[in-house]
Amino acid sequence: MKYKMNLAELKMFLLDKDNIDELLEKIDFIHPMDLLDIIHSENNQVIQTILNRLPDDYLAQLLDFEKDEAKYKLLKQFSIDKQKNILNEMSSDEITDLIDTLNNKEKNDVLSKLSNKHQLEINQLLAYIPDSAGSIMAYEFISIRANKTVLKTLEFLQTEAKDADMAYYLYVTDKVGHLKGVVSLRDIISSSFDTKISSITNTNIFSVHVDDDQEEVAMMFDKYDYVMLPVVDNEGIIVGIITVDDIIDIIKEETTEDIHLMAGLDSEEKVDGSLFNSIKSRLPWLSVNLITALIAASVVSYYSNTIQSIVALAAISPIITGMGGNAGNQSMTIVVRGIALNELTKENAWRIFFKELGVGIIIGLFIGTIVGVACMYFYQTPLLGLVAGVSIMANLIIATVSGFSVPIILKKCHVDPALASSIFVTTATDVLGFFIFLSLATLCLPYLI
Amino acid sequence: MKYKMNLAELKMFLLDKDNIDELLEKIDFIHPMDLLDIIHSENNQVIQTILNRLPDDYLAQLLDFEKDEAKYKLLKQFSIDKQKNILNEMSSDEITDLIDTLNNKEKNDVLSKLSNKHQLEINQLLAYIPDSAGSIMAYEFISIRANKTVLKTLEFLQTEAKDADMAYYLYVTDKVGHLKGVVSLRDIISSSFDTKISSITNTNIFSVHVDDDQEEVAMMFDKYDYVMLPVVDNEGIIVGIITVDDIIDIIKEETTEDIHLMAGLDSEEKVDGSLFNSIKSRLPWLSVNLITALIAASVVSYYSNTIQSIVALAAISPIITGMGGNAGNQSMTIVVRGIALNELTKENAWRIFFKELGVGIIIGLFIGTIVGVACMYFYQTPLLGLVAGVSIMANLIIATVSGFSVPIILKKCHVDPALASSIFVTTATDVLGFFIFLSLATLCLPYLI
Repeated sequence: MKYKMNLAELKMFLLDKDNIDELLEKIDFIHPMDLLDIIHSENNQVIQTILNRLPDDYLAQLLDFEKDEAKYKLLKQFSIDKQKNILNEMSSDEITDLIDTLNNKEKNDVLSKLSNKHQLEINQLLAYIPDSAGSIMAYEFISIRANKTVLKTLEFLQTEAKDADMAYYLYVTDKVGHLKGVVSLRDIISSSFDTKISSITNTNIFSVHVDDDQEEVAMMFDKYDYVMLPVVDNEGIIVGIITVDDIIDIIKEETTEDIHLMAGLDSEEKVDGSLFNSIKSRLPWLSVNLITALIAASVVSYYSNTIQSIVALAAISPIITGMGGNAGNQSMTIVVRGIALNELTKENAWRIFFKELGVGIIIGLFIGTIVGVACMYFYQTPLLGLVAGVSIMANLIIATVSGFSVPIILKKCHVDPALASSIFVTTATDVLGFFIFLSLATLCLPYLI
Repeated sequence: MKYKMNLAELKMFLLDKDNIDELLEKIDFIHPMDLLDIIHSENNQVIQTILNRLPDDYLAQLLDFEKDEAKYKLLKQFSIDKQKNILNEMSSDEITDLIDTLNNKEKNDVLSKLSNKHQLEINQLLAYIPDSAGSIMAYEFISIRANKTVLKTLEFLQTEAKDADMAYYLYVTDKVGHLKGVVSLRDIISSSFDTKISSITNTNIFSVHVDDDQEEVAMMFDKYDYVMLPVVDNEGIIVGIITVDDIIDIIKEETTEDIHLMAGLDSEEKVDGSLFNSIKSRLPWLSVNLITALIAASVVSYYSNTIQSIVALAAISPIITGMGGNAGNQSMTIVVRGIALNELTKENAWRIFFKELGVGIIIGLFIGTIVGVACMYFYQTPLLGLVAGVSIMANLIIATVSGFSVPIILKKCHVDPALASSIFVTTATDVLGFFIFLSLATLCLPYLI
């Protein structure tokens, strides 16, 4: 990968004070993210001076690319007037991203620096349900009328398009704002100047409702390869747009959430977060797991006489529960991910159930035979090997079947399958694993000693 | 969410034979994905007839939206001539997506139906390293010259833009094709007609090299919010473009890979895949884990005399290893995900290490105290409770520290941290967990009986 101007050159260029006019001229060609990288590695007085001289709209972009938790700090480096100007150059969804991370005092500080119109808009956006389409949309879209020509539209765009976030699609509305259709910029520029907008308008337009869940919206972007989508209210009036760059963030956020939940972590825990937050994130699940472990231990306790007679059982039983736990986790992971990717449907669920059952049987036969033979050889007791082998096989079948069933049942009960599946699957493989092995051994005890 | 035309209406509309002219006129307003949904739910003779009458460029889109493994079957439903026409309407990256899933005979069948020029292009694309920028790029970009005016460019686009995949950015090149800059469509339409392209060209342009890894490319799209990026060869000549819709697929693919590897699954296993593939995916990791389990069992075996004296140890020890395994998995997951999201860096690594150590100590104190007190109460042996509590605490510290260290060490050794981390972490918590608890108990044996 390469830049035409690499970071070192960029820094030289920025720091060259004689260059300030040239800098201002060329600043639009420097990606805000690159400037941020420089600010992060070295935020000194010289860079401060340069920042203060940059245009407001550029600084607004800079703030948008800054990490959520550092945006406010960056903003506060400027004079109050400059802060106001920067904020009023930001698009509405960028401001809500900033405000979402702030405490009440900071939030009011930011709101007080917005223009009245902007303030109203932001308060409206903040009122939408968290993680809904409304909460992630931007107000900055372009709407046009169907009866205009391409030439008239192009002239209109020469004044309007600069403010819009991503002006790849123009929305055709009536006077009130009811969404009637969409025209792509590509269709406009590839049509002759006298073409009427109505003749290139796609009226079979897909839109999302302000209250739709952001995860569903992300799935739509993915399924249909959209670049942007209009958001409408109950009356069908277009109120905002969602663009694909936000969707990538949502997909990453939702996947991180699933990965965390499967491992028993709070969905919000950050690798670079605080000690307190880590403990708050991990302790609840470990506590639930402790209960599971205590139940499993009480099963073992119940059979302590058997174990005292044949102490080998204490060494073998963790193999049985451990293998069951791992196999269950494999099935559960593939099913939870399959649900998230919409690859597990009503149509193929039974086929997948029988596949998982088959995996349990075949893997059970394989691992069961190895462990069985190893036990026979090591303890020179064929029956003990048989008991261990049969128990492992049974537990591996329990593992794949519960790994398949638990997430599906949880989903039916409207619980996030990623959240609690592993608790139930582990409980099943641990408790039943110990129970099957130790009860079988107790039954066979007279022949084992 | 809502369509202007829902699926039932769309089906009615498609099935209305009198409507065929109207259908052809409006087909561009029907999203290919919606038509695919109908084909999937009901592929009868009537739909076949409609499909045969649809324009080639629309069918090319339909094929692009079809799932990879079903594309070829859909293509083969058409006459040979129609197949040729459809294929030659497809963009180069769409054809390589299709070919990637085929066996040699099918691949040659598809290649033989392409025009000579197309055939050459595709063979070139197929020669790129798998999962490289070259392997996912498309040839269909628009290049323009810097000395043209906006009006001239708009006129040029009226003939050219229809073929390009996503014509949001135009690439400025010299005669040979060396990439000199980029102009956004938005800048073109918001500039007056007599503006020179050179004056709105961004020359500080970022490009990726054909051999760059697709995961790195995806990270660039995410970091900089790009919608498309140019791909250049060793000479800096633009050879293709990558668009954001492909990036979403890559991000999903790479995350699924990480999730699978962490659970000990092959990165390619599909929830709706075959029984054989599932077993091939899961057995290797379970076998490795079996070795770990056997090592842990041999530790238990070594202390069988101690266990025979105090059979309670057999019930308590799975609690110690189980809690350690879970806590280790939590730390490992947060670190592996942190590496994937670029949130764990050289700068914050030490701070995160000490945080994980702190989590281990505090959680260890908490869980250790509960288990210790429970054991004291249940077995009425204070020393046994102390041994259990101290062992759990030690094992939880081992868990968080190894959960942090193992992925980082693997990454340093250029092994995917998602792949093997859990094996090493589980081995550490199982083997050391049993060892610490049982050796401590052996030491205290005289006072425990």
